Amino acid sequence: MTIQELTDRIDDLALHIEQGDLVAASDALTGLDPHDVVTAIERMSPRDGAVLFRLLAKDRALAVFEALAPAVQADLVRQLREVEVAAMFADLDPDDRVWLLDELPAAVARALLLGLPERERQLTADVLGYPQNAIGRRMNPDYVTTHPDLTVAQTMARIRAALGTAETVYTLPVTDHGREVVGVVSLRDLMSAPDDARVREIMSEPHTATATSDAEQAARLCADMSLLALPVVDSERRLVGILTLDDAARILKREESEDAARQGGVEPLGRPYLSTPITRLVRSRVVWLLVLAVGATLTVQVLEIFEATLAQLTALALFVPLLIGTGGNTGNQAATTVTRALALDEVRPRDILRVLGRELRVGFLLGLALGCLGFVIAGAIYAFPIGLVIGLTLAAVCTVAATIGGIMPLVARAIHVDPAVFSNPFITTFVDATGLVIYFLIAKAVLGI
Amino acid sequence: MTIQELTDRIDDLALHIEQGDLVAASDALTGLDPHDVVTAIERMSPRDGAVLFRLLAKDRALAVFEALAPAVQADLVRQLREVEVAAMFADLDPDDRVWLLDELPAAVARALLLGLPERERQLTADVLGYPQNAIGRRMNPDYVTTHPDLTVAQTMARIRAALGTAETVYTLPVTDHGREVVGVVSLRDLMSAPDDARVREIMSEPHTATATSDAEQAARLCADMSLLALPVVDSERRLVGILTLDDAARILKREESEDAARQGGVEPLGRPYLSTPITRLVRSRVVWLLVLAVGATLTVQVLEIFEATLAQLTALALFVPLLIGTGGNTGNQAATTVTRALALDEVRPRDILRVLGRELRVGFLLGLALGCLGFVIAGAIYAFPIGLVIGLTLAAVCTVAATIGGIMPLVARAIHVDPAVFSNPFITTFVDATGLVIYFLIAKAVLGI
Repeated sequence: MTIQELTDRIDDLALHIEQGDLVAASDALTGLDPHDVVTAIERMSPRDGAVLFRLLAKDRALAVFEALAPAVQADLVRQLREVEVAAMFADLDPDDRVWLLDELPAAVARALLLGLPERERQLTADVLGYPQNAIGRRMNPDYVTTHPDLTVAQTMARIRAALGTAETVYTLPVTDHGREVVGVVSLRDLMSAPDDARVREIMSEPHTATATSDAEQAARLCADMSLLALPVVDSERRLVGILTLDDAARILKREESEDAARQGGVEPLGRPYLSTPITRLVRSRVVWLLVLAVGATLTVQVLEIFEATLAQLTALALFVPLLIGTGGNTGNQAATTVTRALALDEVRPRDILRVLGRELRVGFLLGLALGCLGFVIAGAIYAFPIGLVIGLTLAAVCTVAATIGGIMPLVARAIHVDPAVFSNPFITTFVDATGLVIYFLIAKAVLGI
Repeated sequence: MTIQELTDRIDDLALHIEQGDLVAASDALTGLDPHDVVTAIERMSPRDGAVLFRLLAKDRALAVFEALAPAVQADLVRQLREVEVAAMFADLDPDDRVWLLDELPAAVARALLLGLPERERQLTADVLGYPQNAIGRRMNPDYVTTHPDLTVAQTMARIRAALGTAETVYTLPVTDHGREVVGVVSLRDLMSAPDDARVREIMSEPHTATATSDAEQAARLCADMSLLALPVVDSERRLVGILTLDDAARILKREESEDAARQGGVEPLGRPYLSTPITRLVRSRVVWLLVLAVGATLTVQVLEIFEATLAQLTALALFVPLLIGTGGNTGNQAATTVTRALALDEVRPRDILRVLGRELRVGFLLGLALGCLGFVIAGAIYAFPIGLVIGLTLAAVCTVAATIGGIMPLVARAIHVDPAVFSNPFITTFVDATGLVIYFLIAKAVLGI
């Protein structure tokens, strides 16, 4: 099937469901693999998604359910019958279960947890005990370990016993008698070693993450170092779970979506766009928009102060959008760069002076370039003094905007606010008001009004 | 070592290098693992990074080199001696080699390629033959396969033989005599099966990606489906390489950094912030800033048209930044949401009418909320007619901005431009000018001037 055909098929499927033609929908499902079914469901309304989901055979349904976004899983839970849900819920890995629980109302979550077999309930409860953003909440508490004094043959026997159940058998934490992590060993290393070799001889230095530490940072470590599994430990370095690379990729995907949303001044949806109800889209944006609009009344106030100047020389008003736009752009550029660097752990709040120095220089150079250009153009079209005002304002605004835009994300992180929230939208508003003040002060000085 | 101590250590290291105290730097290196050394190098100037790199023992140096960002690797290549570089270059996987080659001047790249052993050169050349954004260029052409008629024992023997060299042995593509991919089998499945079982009986349906298809999409498939390895095939479904999950995560990380940069109106740096020279930071921003500033002269022209109106009622100028700011914010919100949905393949260009319908409704509802608020506030503080103008303008601008912001990324994708480039900065400029026209038309109609 080409991608074109596949896309057509998924569109047809949605159409059949919408029209209530379940026979045709069943036909269209043949040949689609779980990934395609996930795509289809995530493009539908929750109700249609549930109808489609009911058409799936049982084992296929589980594979699809596992791969759905947690918010869409939660939609399904609301639509399906209790017994259907209970079976699938028990089949999920403990970490996947917690993603879903986070999306459900407390009463539903409690009922589902009570329906679990004892061991699964305990494992899930362990994970649920960690704070929202901690890696402990995203780890899998079900793992195979080995011991430094065991032989390769003994370890392989442990692996064979766990093949059907463990999340991964390709990387094993090595723990001593106190459950402390002392190394990791890969299945590959085990297979390369003689049967009677001790694990101690072939294990390597472990990377680990503390269960209460930030989930994104642990996931980044896992991905950056290409670790198939990262042992998660408590404050005494005792093993409590593992983070697998695929779960790390999932955490990073979600974090990145959240960062992108906040940088654009939107609350993260946490669910696919087309399956999100309009009211929820509105809710994800309206608060931010109001906050920013209220912030922007600052610009009205600044302009009021200079209303007399403005009345004297209306030409000054012509350049207001251009000047504050350029300031906003410069600030956003700096904020975007530094926010991303923070997310990737390339800079930290303590680097604030280095960042300040860099952005000051960058902003000044940008201001010089734009200022000269503005001076020449505005000077040529209007008059020399106007050109001078525009040029000087551009130079000053760029310098200020880049500096503020660059350090704002670091300040946000230092006071434990998401830098992505605090940066772009706020910077624009702040820079707008500052830029106007600079503009009119320069205009008054140069034009003598 | 706590994170605090580690951070201090890395800062000390940088200080020692800067002061030329190599003995102290060597001491500070003890106990740091490759990941920490990478962090240290990526926070330094290229010259200091090379000094630090030279202090590393040979095997450690390779691990560090592999984990560095390709642009930083390229810096090192320029600073180190040819023999040092040649040895490390030969040790890289073919796909990692191509990342680095893409960052090097053609002459240096050619010299390095010529220095490779014959087989490695051939593998690298295969990968280099694919276009820049294709998954073929990011795959590893070095893999282990099995055949549907082979037994589990025979396959395990193949795996054992490849343990030292293959990128992964945990997921094997199953190919028939024509090298066509007919399935995949995991080491786990192999270990669970009896020795004399045929691969045919235990293999599962393969996900595959065509070598010329988009790298990001293939990487997303790999990550979404938690595939440890995704077979990459040519147009006849013959195996040409594999994409491993860690490489997929790396591709996604880079793509996401690029998207974030472009959404903020910055050319992607492709390298860590602190190790980027100031001039390069300026270059990554100045062109965009100039383009946007030139675009913003449109607002000057629009305001000129309405200069007479403005002179008549200076109060109108007070609200210009607020109104265009709100329009820009609304447009950015829509663009951010849709751009992200596009990147995640949740919407496609053919969904343009659905997106249009949704954003029109979202924009109208947002406009209604903000318009009412604006009407009440501006009406109370200034005068009823002014309130009416502001309220109506906000309602109209929000509707238009959300609609344009929502469909612009889809239009960009349809004409094969990066949606992230085309959306936010352009939208702001476009919405600014449109918003001004709407504002003055409404003002003229309501105020009768």
